[in-house]
Amino acid sequence: MDLKPTKPLSGFIELLPAAQRCFDYCAGKMQNVLKLAGFSMLDLPAIERAEVLTDKDNWDEIETQMFLFQKGDTKMGLRYDGTVGLSRYVAGHLNDLVFPFRASQFSKRYRGERAQRGRYREFYQMDLDIMGINSLSTNYDAEIISVINRALDSVVEFIGPNEVLIGSRPFWDALFDYLEMNAGQKKDVFVLIDKKDKMGDEDFAEGLRDTLNDINKENAIKSVFTGGYTDFVNKTDKLDAAIDELNKFMGVLAGMGVKNAKIDLSITRGLAYYTGLVFEFKLLNHPELGTAAGGGRYADLAGKFSKTKIIGVGAAIGFSRIFAAMLENDQIDLAEFLNPIDVAVLVMGDNNVAYASNIVNTLRDENIAAVSYLDTDKKFKNQIEYADKIKAKFSIIIGDNEVKNKVVAIKDMKSGDQQSLSLIDAIKKVKAA
Amino acid sequence: MDLKPTKPLSGFIELLPAAQRCFDYCAGKMQNVLKLAGFSMLDLPAIERAEVLTDKDNWDEIETQMFLFQKGDTKMGLRYDGTVGLSRYVAGHLNDLVFPFRASQFSKRYRGERAQRGRYREFYQMDLDIMGINSLSTNYDAEIISVINRALDSVVEFIGPNEVLIGSRPFWDALFDYLEMNAGQKKDVFVLIDKKDKMGDEDFAEGLRDTLNDINKENAIKSVFTGGYTDFVNKTDKLDAAIDELNKFMGVLAGMGVKNAKIDLSITRGLAYYTGLVFEFKLLNHPELGTAAGGGRYADLAGKFSKTKIIGVGAAIGFSRIFAAMLENDQIDLAEFLNPIDVAVLVMGDNNVAYASNIVNTLRDENIAAVSYLDTDKKFKNQIEYADKIKAKFSIIIGDNEVKNKVVAIKDMKSGDQQSLSLIDAIKKVKAA
Repeated sequence: MDLKPTKPLSGFIELLPAAQRCFDYCAGKMQNVLKLAGFSMLDLPAIERAEVLTDKDNWDEIETQMFLFQKGDTKMGLRYDGTVGLSRYVAGHLNDLVFPFRASQFSKRYRGERAQRGRYREFYQMDLDIMGINSLSTNYDAEIISVINRALDSVVEFIGPNEVLIGSRPFWDALFDYLEMNAGQKKDVFVLIDKKDKMGDEDFAEGLRDTLNDINKENAIKSVFTGGYTDFVNKTDKLDAAIDELNKFMGVLAGMGVKNAKIDLSITRGLAYYTGLVFEFKLLNHPELGTAAGGGRYADLAGKFSKTKIIGVGAAIGFSRIFAAMLENDQIDLAEFLNPIDVAVLVMGDNNVAYASNIVNTLRDENIAAVSYLDTDKKFKNQIEYADKIKAKFSIIIGDNEVKNKVVAIKDMKSGDQQSLSLIDAIKKVKAA
Repeated sequence: MDLKPTKPLSGFIELLPAAQRCFDYCAGKMQNVLKLAGFSMLDLPAIERAEVLTDKDNWDEIETQMFLFQKGDTKMGLRYDGTVGLSRYVAGHLNDLVFPFRASQFSKRYRGERAQRGRYREFYQMDLDIMGINSLSTNYDAEIISVINRALDSVVEFIGPNEVLIGSRPFWDALFDYLEMNAGQKKDVFVLIDKKDKMGDEDFAEGLRDTLNDINKENAIKSVFTGGYTDFVNKTDKLDAAIDELNKFMGVLAGMGVKNAKIDLSITRGLAYYTGLVFEFKLLNHPELGTAAGGGRYADLAGKFSKTKIIGVGAAIGFSRIFAAMLENDQIDLAEFLNPIDVAVLVMGDNNVAYASNIVNTLRDENIAAVSYLDTDKKFKNQIEYADKIKAKFSIIIGDNEVKNKVVAIKDMKSGDQQSLSLIDAIKKVKAA
């Protein structure tokens, strides 16, 4: 019989134990920051009705982007982000939740497209959203950024420092009006701006020329990418309002202790539903990872599910994009995750299993990670080799003598020192190490 | 426009925030038990190649049981258990892992079948597996049971006490031989035994009669369900060996401190790959939940992936089956999960956001869960109502006076007492509460 493949499907991640411990540790640290900031951790279904996932009904096209299936008459698929499920959930629980409602989701999402280098088809994102009914101060946009900043800083030893770039959708609206662009041009130019990074400067310039055919307008738009808003102060009230909002927002961020924010109007967050300020976090030491987190404001988060107007500001931290990528590329020192086991309890002979098990249970009760080696017919040499391989800090060796004398033989696996101690003294020794 | 449905698909679980906190708390408690017992937490892909998920190639039939899709030429689907992925992973990493290897997976699994009452289509199981190369003492079977027992006991306040029933596949093999049943009868009777609970006693008896047509044999098998192995001692060496193994195993369990185990030969764990002892945990106060956890031994866990013989003993705890079910049925008192917020910081006026944010950051740095209310134009009445609704233990109110005097107004939300304190004293007060 042919053996089946042992590699996961391309685009799917699986980590070895030490790397997984690092991944989980970082997730736990960051989630703790979010919990202290009052975010409720939600765990929503990974599968949603197709009509929830998308407004399109071109099944064939959607199928190339998502994982879809049909059960009976119901078309359904795996979520590609956390926002669709959250919108549905919040709209369905308006009376069960307190607004402004702070929600976080740390969950797997799925993209059905063919796997590309650095693109995962299954990946974790850590979402943060704050939602209000009918109104929500932009102070909450700043709060989201502040909390993400704290979350990323909680794992700074692994990922290094970050910066956050703030963009404004209203600025572009105002600029397009000021440049007297028509609706079609507005839309086309926005698509160009969104794709600028992928296109490169030359194709971008050509795109602008094709769309606008006006060198002044083309240069005006290009100037935003080099000089920011400076050319557009005192031009129109709408432009000034957008610029004022942005500057005021930078003041709020500074007041919240966010020291690493700067305005970058090239940040637009694509064609999604964002309606206000938008932002992207970058890891200064890891430009190769692209955007570490990004988000913005939705004027009407759940309009498809509810007549109640839910305003949201939210962001997704690309958790797998950061950590799975760095772990797969050996960019994180795993030293502190290599030996989670404090004590390996080695048992010489089946008669001593009960005595040894009592020791193991006591160690675990004392919050000491303890593993027992229960193939008791194996020679001492094999057993101590196991303790060495799992990088246990100590071995406790239980043979007939230890049982008879009600002691344990404890060996410091680093120094090699071995002592015969009471269990109580052995526990003290382990805890002191 | 019609609004889209806000309910999740049937068979899918989503919890409100307090219930989710309870769910996560119990998972964390139980996972901590497993970590202290040296289990590596693995997080494997939810999607596997169809050929990994199943040996069958009847696509239509499989499709009724699983969530399947095809991408290009590759058929794939969502995992229905943790064992298939684990087998693949371990076989693919024989040189990266130390054996006996202890692995745990707490992850979502999927069943594509039509949702029935009490059956989920997406659910969490918490798996524990210990795997050895070529040999693995049955002491490890006892260790798995002991660790599950400790894990369930770590949340005993929610789920009450448990018992574990131990069955033996070798006993049935020996009994079938003793009764001189032919291969077809063995297989058919085993199917009957597996389905006995669902069939009821009458249909079971009828099934035995149809298959065996021998009243002595029928009664022999039925006697196991009433009297256990007592009728079959000293009949054949093979029966005695199976009974001895079982009794010796009960002794090992007792030696490990497992006080709630008993032999129940009606436990067979279905037609799966188990080859030795099998076991099921029941919650004594919740018979309606059925089997809380179950498992057994595989003589050749990963034979489809590797020529190396990997012996495994493993179990799955039906985490959603227990906790989602109890939470959905309001069987758990959520009192301690209702107010995760220590302090609501209420901000009177946008000018005071920076001062208030500094307080919020300091509270969070001190491990105090703090939420800021940042719609600063809202009246005090609305803001304190928010603090009340989120069940914050304290409110800290920041107005112009507090900023001017560099103090905070702190209100005990239970007693209603309000004081003006330095931030340091306010933190002391919160920590003392």
